[in-house]
Amino acid sequence: MNFCLLFPPAVAAAGNNKMSSQPGQEAPPSAADFSAATISKKALKKDARNAEKAAKNEEQALQPAAAAEDPFAENYGDVLPGEILPKAISGEPWTKVGHLDEAAVGRSVLIRARAHTIRPVGRKMAFVVLRQGMSTVQCVLVVSADAGISAQMVRFAASLPKESVVAVEGVVSLPKEDLKSATQEVEIQVRKLYCIDRADPNLPITVEDAARSESEFVRAEQTGEKLVRVGQDTRLNHRVIDLRTPANQAIFRVQYELENKFREYLSSNDFIGIHTPKLISGSSEGGAAVFKLEYNGQPACLAQSPQLHKQLAICGGFRGVFEVGPVFRAENSNTHRHLCEFVGLDAEMEIMENYFEVCDIVDGLFVELFKHLNDKCKKELQTINRQFPFEPLKYLDKTLRLSYEEGITMLKEAGTEIEHMGDLNTEAEKKLGRLVREKYDTDFFILYQYPLAVRPFYTMPCYENPLYSNSFDVFLRGEEIISGAQRIHDPELLAKRAVECGIEKSSIESYVRSFSYGTPPHGGFGVGLERVVMLFCALNNIRKTSLFPRDPQRLVP
Amino acid sequence: MNFCLLFPPAVAAAGNNKMSSQPGQEAPPSAADFSAATISKKALKKDARNAEKAAKNEEQALQPAAAAEDPFAENYGDVLPGEILPKAISGEPWTKVGHLDEAAVGRSVLIRARAHTIRPVGRKMAFVVLRQGMSTVQCVLVVSADAGISAQMVRFAASLPKESVVAVEGVVSLPKEDLKSATQEVEIQVRKLYCIDRADPNLPITVEDAARSESEFVRAEQTGEKLVRVGQDTRLNHRVIDLRTPANQAIFRVQYELENKFREYLSSNDFIGIHTPKLISGSSEGGAAVFKLEYNGQPACLAQSPQLHKQLAICGGFRGVFEVGPVFRAENSNTHRHLCEFVGLDAEMEIMENYFEVCDIVDGLFVELFKHLNDKCKKELQTINRQFPFEPLKYLDKTLRLSYEEGITMLKEAGTEIEHMGDLNTEAEKKLGRLVREKYDTDFFILYQYPLAVRPFYTMPCYENPLYSNSFDVFLRGEEIISGAQRIHDPELLAKRAVECGIEKSSIESYVRSFSYGTPPHGGFGVGLERVVMLFCALNNIRKTSLFPRDPQRLVP
Repeated sequence: MNFCLLFPPAVAAAGNNKMSSQPGQEAPPSAADFSAATISKKALKKDARNAEKAAKNEEQALQPAAAAEDPFAENYGDVLPGEILPKAISGEPWTKVGHLDEAAVGRSVLIRARAHTIRPVGRKMAFVVLRQGMSTVQCVLVVSADAGISAQMVRFAASLPKESVVAVEGVVSLPKEDLKSATQEVEIQVRKLYCIDRADPNLPITVEDAARSESEFVRAEQTGEKLVRVGQDTRLNHRVIDLRTPANQAIFRVQYELENKFREYLSSNDFIGIHTPKLISGSSEGGAAVFKLEYNGQPACLAQSPQLHKQLAICGGFRGVFEVGPVFRAENSNTHRHLCEFVGLDAEMEIMENYFEVCDIVDGLFVELFKHLNDKCKKELQTINRQFPFEPLKYLDKTLRLSYEEGITMLKEAGTEIEHMGDLNTEAEKKLGRLVREKYDTDFFILYQYPLAVRPFYTMPCYENPLYSNSFDVFLRGEEIISGAQRIHDPELLAKRAVECGIEKSSIESYVRSFSYGTPPHGGFGVGLERVVMLFCALNNIRKTSLFPRDPQRLVP
Repeated sequence: MNFCLLFPPAVAAAGNNKMSSQPGQEAPPSAADFSAATISKKALKKDARNAEKAAKNEEQALQPAAAAEDPFAENYGDVLPGEILPKAISGEPWTKVGHLDEAAVGRSVLIRARAHTIRPVGRKMAFVVLRQGMSTVQCVLVVSADAGISAQMVRFAASLPKESVVAVEGVVSLPKEDLKSATQEVEIQVRKLYCIDRADPNLPITVEDAARSESEFVRAEQTGEKLVRVGQDTRLNHRVIDLRTPANQAIFRVQYELENKFREYLSSNDFIGIHTPKLISGSSEGGAAVFKLEYNGQPACLAQSPQLHKQLAICGGFRGVFEVGPVFRAENSNTHRHLCEFVGLDAEMEIMENYFEVCDIVDGLFVELFKHLNDKCKKELQTINRQFPFEPLKYLDKTLRLSYEEGITMLKEAGTEIEHMGDLNTEAEKKLGRLVREKYDTDFFILYQYPLAVRPFYTMPCYENPLYSNSFDVFLRGEEIISGAQRIHDPELLAKRAVECGIEKSSIESYVRSFSYGTPPHGGFGVGLERVVMLFCALNNIRKTSLFPRDPQRLVP
């Protein structure tokens, strides 16, 4: 049996697919949802040309094994999409590739993974490296009547397109020499091999190419070997393949752990997670950085930050709240650190005595985050490091806090021209980061008490010196990642400050009114998830830490 | 000292509030963000009229205590917004209202909370009930030279507007009789009392009114007492006050715990949390239920579900993924269970042998969720029950699974006319819920193997009988809350099914192409967070479980 049966003819009735008019929470996505992955034909053509060469090698032996006269035909073959798994291996437990080690030697295991690389050796032997998440393992097929492996089966394996999903049953063994082609130290002597889903042999990019580190290119330069370099844009056009590289598998696990710890730390400090609306009432004065849309005949826009609603949650009686959710910026910023949609980590809390309570939360939270990542994501960080080498982040157990004035003094003493009481530009921030690292041996610090004039109107002025404000920024490897402050909770002072800052009173009337029903002093901060991961791992582009990034030029896939 | 000093004059320089052109992650919200809370003037006027009566009582004694000749003037007064806390009580630890019990009797405590109700007794005594989250405690002021309490101080307390934020220092004592007006069994003998933020005495609604249960109205009917009934719309217009009711404080804690457990259960089953883009490429065929917008000159829309991208994440090499994030539906559905923006809990996973693996996850997840809420949120559920009485949910340790055919048979046997191979309408779903409850004593069950014709085109047909599909719905108290299925992972079959369902091939080309690079069999499910909380607590309206709900008529606050 070769599992090459025809799929039962699809049903006539199926044409009458009436979608429920009262859809459940998982209503069918619209046509737009499915056209969402469209990439320009030109881009695809270009990528196809690049990939053509790589694909040629695989175009040779793509016919499935002729099974007619093979006594071991049951041990391999293609599985039909509706069938999922051949009965020959059904019901047995699955082993994870990453769990395969010397302890498993001699045991029979069942694995489902992707064909990473395939290397035939003559007609009687083939190596198939299987990849699952960040791990790879080498599988060996040798023609042998005892093992039930025919020459046809070896040919079947050797002709598998890369990236096909396969199920393998085999015996774990120690390889004769160290394996450089796989992460696992053991290999698998294949007994059965089924192709669960056959990949297109003309892949636009390969995971092998997409996973190369800079050092591989340097070595190749020396040896004269020609390697395909996959550009950032091509990667993103084919993100479903690009995401399969070990580094990308690691990056999104780090991101997930970061979010988990963020939630856990704030939970244990008496915050609760909330969800605020992203659709908000919008007027024409919304400004250029706002996405506008129509909401049942009313003008609306997408929230640029949960600022308003997290403050309203504090007004609503919650002592401390946080939110993890999308934030939308219609900015035409084509930089390494800007996205038009990113994941905001926001928090807001009652202040009991002093806005340094907010700094204390930031301090404790981030030190715990860094420790947690270094501890829990060792393997992930090593994996990222292999493709994108980076120096571990330097941070202090008690985060360094410098006042704005101290920061400015450091910059001036180092000869930087800087406007007193002005904001720091990107260059000054980088410079300050270097100076702080030299002096205090840390990549992470808080700069507090900014001039009032460079902060938004709703920032609380310093009580002792109202030229300054109860605000702070936080820096990671010389880039600003967090902005935070105490907010004005008094409606009169808020309205006064708005007018002083040239904001029309009528436009913020309801915002101000929300604070008239008894509001505790409060403050908070916001940080972008992608930016923290990027800087923690010293990656060079925020697009590397967004699953499906959105920038001014990219809305797909 | 009475803390009534003038606030230092705001700064001239503050007018020059240049917002950074490279805003940090917490960039200043736009003007639109702040006008977002706008409510129509008409609605406000109406609410104001309703509240006028209630406010009258408070209009009498609003002048702050004349402090001139009071030897105890330091023990009370208003605090300036910039000052946060009077020095007289600075540096001491804060006690939570909910933690006050008999064990604290005799101790001096410091509390910050809102003035829930204020009741003067003659000129020498006043009761102030303070509220914090779900808890309230009664504070007592009696004129006494020993305790440092003057008649002016009692007047100051008696004249506090409801909802003002106050800081109280006092000694915990046992009341002479049982307190019906507060949740805590002890009371506080006030020594110091400062108003941190004075509320507008003309509140549009009071928390006392908004927190009344139906049984209070029944009692009032009998005694002839007149109570203010706060309508759903009025509540939402003044959500920052409405959210302060004990029931609302409890609802959003339950919601938070539900989300936490959802994440924890899936984490422990080898899923990772992801974030998919909400801005997706949109074409004009998007359909009526889609919010459309312009994205840097391209047509775009808001994702109606993370369906596409969570499937792409599986294509991208992640074994199991989940997402908690906003979902947008531009439907004009004005029902008790539809929102235009809600929080979707979505999951997608590789299937190894059978789509029942997805049902297993749903089963285990929800049974754990229910147990967790009943266990961890006892106080919250009691609090909700006091205002909105409900029967605890009935569920089985191993969730009941009925096939679609079994469900149809039960309905037919009960005399319900129902189209065979058709979808269930809301009425049939409710009926089936009742029948299942009678027969199996559960409010929670899975109905699986729906006809292929009533499911979206991307649903995997049953291998054994392609008139049916590998799909399921899940019901809670007679309402569908979850929809799930195995998806077609084979690009050819997917394209074929799309055409059979009348979908233009070109519109889904890139979606189909994503599956050509080696895709494991997979499936998943989606559920709305607000809907689960609503049905778990048997609340009558989904607007009660959304922090700031969005429906066709409501985009504010």
